[in-house]
Amino acid sequence: MPSPKLHFEDFHIGRVFELGPKTVDAAEIIEFATEFDPQPMHLSEQAGKASILGGLSASGWHTSSMFMRMMIDSYLLSSVSEGAPGIDVMEWKKPVLAGDTLKGRSTVTAARAMRSRPHIGIVTFSHELENQRGETVLRSENAIMFRIRGEENAA
Amino acid sequence: MPSPKLHFEDFHIGRVFELGPKTVDAAEIIEFATEFDPQPMHLSEQAGKASILGGLSASGWHTSSMFMRMMIDSYLLSSVSEGAPGIDVMEWKKPVLAGDTLKGRSTVTAARAMRSRPHIGIVTFSHELENQRGETVLRSENAIMFRIRGEENAA
Repeated sequence: MPSPKLHFEDFHIGRVFELGPKTVDAAEIIEFATEFDPQPMHLSEQAGKASILGGLSASGWHTSSMFMRMMIDSYLLSSVSEGAPGIDVMEWKKPVLAGDTLKGRSTVTAARAMRSRPHIGIVTFSHELENQRGETVLRSENAIMFRIRGEENAA
Repeated sequence: MPSPKLHFEDFHIGRVFELGPKTVDAAEIIEFATEFDPQPMHLSEQAGKASILGGLSASGWHTSSMFMRMMIDSYLLSSVSEGAPGIDVMEWKKPVLAGDTLKGRSTVTAARAMRSRPHIGIVTFSHELENQRGETVLRSENAIMFRIRGEENAA
């Protein structure tokens, strides 16, 4: 019986996977920033308000990590992912402030089999997250490797 | 007296800032992955060994976040940074395994004043991190905004 997990063949061009929603709270912002990005606007409401960001705001790396968790919950953990070689585009377009609720989508924009590893296919995604005001806060593109169902069954 | 903090003018083309060293332990890898990237190879040594990564390995987003912390400690927190609009390139070239020690460098590759905000300059960096075997594990490029000292003094 074929695995019910999402394989390369399931990521057809134009398919959309919903991301989130996820509400970001102040304690999470401060906890992440304390470890990885201890700049004042990520550590206190007061410093955030004094900055161009306008309030206590998540590190871009924190927003990116929350975005990863949304991909995990939406489709990666239920797929036969073989990981990603990196990120092609990562834009932090608006501040993510304490109390914001993020949601978005990953859209398949390309899919092809690897030449060097014929049982693996590469799927290219365009991703975006927006806040509760409908403003895009993150835009990204990357490629993720998935096993090919046909090849798996043939093996 | 001019601020002793690093300003736009201090990021001349070719200047190199050392990053790290930072040793990555298993508990940190599992803690980050549990929150943001709970895939098996980031959660246990056994699952990591069974994967193509060869051992308990850090999420790429964790490696990127540790890289941010190294930039903070090397030059960002001692600068008048105005943040970054995103990441132009992020390549995870080799697995980062529990026990690995990472170090690397950020090199200034371009610098120009912004047209829309003349007191801000944009500095473009090329970054890389390598492990204790000299293998490059992360390569990145991005642009970071810094205040211009001359303009600040003129204000």
